[in-house]
Amino acid sequence: MSAVPFTRHDYAARMARVVEEGRAAGLDGVLITPGPDLYWVTGYQPTAITERLTMLFLTTDREPTLLVPTLERPDAEAAVGAGATTLADWTDGADPFAAAGAMLRPDGTYGISDNAWALHLLGLQAALPGTAYHSLTHRLPMLRAVKDGNELARLEAAGAAADAAYGEILGVRFSGRKETDVARDLAELLRSFGHERVDFTVVGSGPNGANPHHEAGDRVIEVGDCVVLDFGGLRDGYGSDTSRTVCVGEPTAEIREVHEVVRLAQQAGVDAVRPGIACQEVDRAARRVITDAGYGEQFIHRTGHGIGTTTHEPPYMIEGEELPLVPGMCFSVEPGVYLTGRFGVRIEDIVTVTAGGGRRFNNTDRALQVVA
Amino acid sequence: MSAVPFTRHDYAARMARVVEEGRAAGLDGVLITPGPDLYWVTGYQPTAITERLTMLFLTTDREPTLLVPTLERPDAEAAVGAGATTLADWTDGADPFAAAGAMLRPDGTYGISDNAWALHLLGLQAALPGTAYHSLTHRLPMLRAVKDGNELARLEAAGAAADAAYGEILGVRFSGRKETDVARDLAELLRSFGHERVDFTVVGSGPNGANPHHEAGDRVIEVGDCVVLDFGGLRDGYGSDTSRTVCVGEPTAEIREVHEVVRLAQQAGVDAVRPGIACQEVDRAARRVITDAGYGEQFIHRTGHGIGTTTHEPPYMIEGEELPLVPGMCFSVEPGVYLTGRFGVRIEDIVTVTAGGGRRFNNTDRALQVVA
Repeated sequence: MSAVPFTRHDYAARMARVVEEGRAAGLDGVLITPGPDLYWVTGYQPTAITERLTMLFLTTDREPTLLVPTLERPDAEAAVGAGATTLADWTDGADPFAAAGAMLRPDGTYGISDNAWALHLLGLQAALPGTAYHSLTHRLPMLRAVKDGNELARLEAAGAAADAAYGEILGVRFSGRKETDVARDLAELLRSFGHERVDFTVVGSGPNGANPHHEAGDRVIEVGDCVVLDFGGLRDGYGSDTSRTVCVGEPTAEIREVHEVVRLAQQAGVDAVRPGIACQEVDRAARRVITDAGYGEQFIHRTGHGIGTTTHEPPYMIEGEELPLVPGMCFSVEPGVYLTGRFGVRIEDIVTVTAGGGRRFNNTDRALQVVA
Repeated sequence: MSAVPFTRHDYAARMARVVEEGRAAGLDGVLITPGPDLYWVTGYQPTAITERLTMLFLTTDREPTLLVPTLERPDAEAAVGAGATTLADWTDGADPFAAAGAMLRPDGTYGISDNAWALHLLGLQAALPGTAYHSLTHRLPMLRAVKDGNELARLEAAGAAADAAYGEILGVRFSGRKETDVARDLAELLRSFGHERVDFTVVGSGPNGANPHHEAGDRVIEVGDCVVLDFGGLRDGYGSDTSRTVCVGEPTAEIREVHEVVRLAQQAGVDAVRPGIACQEVDRAARRVITDAGYGEQFIHRTGHGIGTTTHEPPYMIEGEELPLVPGMCFSVEPGVYLTGRFGVRIEDIVTVTAGGGRRFNNTDRALQVVA
């Protein structure tokens, strides 16, 4: 079962929304570069993201124009959303910023993709010194945050695939194998359940679990280890990201206790989700449970991040983020406790905001599971 | 046989060279972000390149300082080159640009990695409005261009592995299979010959070969097709990139003619390589052969690009590039002719500059090969 394709109409509607939201935010236009923004708004993903300028101009004063290197033009033309733009190209040796500058007002104020290259931003700033630029994270943070029905269906399917992978991994052997062996199993499972790309397969056993960004290493997993599993990637272009923490053999009382604190914190974070509350309230709800249990200093990251065509995007569930939740937003709720040198626990689901509150896209058992 | 590891001393020497070359170019320092620059100068490659600021400050007025998100600090500490820096971190919720700003002079002029995120450059510009920034491509284009002995050995090994893959692919069946099938074979061969990453496996059969950036598609290869193969990736962190054009069954006289023009153009490009000549002379030498043969309009890209920890970096062999070749530089020489709707031919080797002229890292037969 594969996803319903996005149509040229879908992409044209997104482009119009970008221009309108930009105008409302005081922007004369939005400059979109290869990566998740361009993929979202056109379906176009250049083979490689390189030093050659590719930029979509979504401005208030002209039709959408996609500027590409001449030799990538055939690929761009093949993208569904490119049909909703005027294609322009520049040839090796020509000045791409002269071509780009012609699309812009010399005194204009523009939004630009977060991951646009500094090389390209500096080129625009030099070509048009009177222009001003703002990152989309700061000026239009929620541009891709509210998903439409087709996007929600893809995220739900990605979550279900990740859940299926978790179900299978509980049955594989952990003890006596390296973290990288289990990570490889997870990657294969994600692919076998329809992911076209695997972005991360964290297997943090024992003390490695206390480093929240540990991926997987040569450590041989032992009986008694607490193991953080955190894995995801893209299925039909949309992300999965889920974490569960398991125990190899019977857990100690301390592991049980910490796991239960994190489980309750995660539940509190999900329970806090409803339209209109500030993102930071989700963080506060989860953090309060951990702080009250005495582990506040050991919860060293934000509670969650948005997900869509990337696995890390706005909205962020973090203290200080006052933007309100809106139905259709999707993000992780993933509190953790990290006891340096010993073990870590993290539990994570993707949650979408509905009128009635949060709805999870990950639904595997959150109780502490024992593996072999 | 694996590569000799780079030492902390190697990385410290590179950092010192960055500061010195920056000073000579009028810079108060160079700001390095995750990607090929950071990998080259520290060996550190964050698990994911995200919106969280990671930046290495190589400035004239302080010791090298690597600023990382707190939760990625253990990974950063594990990198060999990080031992030659002072590590600093910032925690989710704090302002990374306040931390970054403290490393910079309020009126300073800095170089910044080409692929630094616009989000981060705009953050620095807002925090310190008196600072000025220049891309490394414009201000220090040759920073990574001259390779040391260990780097040359890695590039040579990567080229030999790509050559071995080409040798094997000549023996596989082409006709009746999809381009993507042959591409998969190429990727597996590159991995089997020691590549840890495959970046591209172009299989452009018949009319698809006339699009220089076509990757590989569902087209079934037929007898009589001219097929462009262009493949590469990273082996021990350094790139391979080679192209050969083969014919499925006996070639027509036209295919033979075009192939011979490209072969002679490629040889002329390599023959032009010697210390002190401008990069554009390599382009001119190759282009002249193609233009004289009447195919000038069908050679629609530059003749080559540098290679190292990326497969596309300065120096570029392109009209207008007047920077001189220096021994130790490594780049592709890859002229092509593209007959839209019909077929294309490209021949590519990686070449290094020696005192005596160009030396190839790809040494497979450049004559037109017939495959089955």
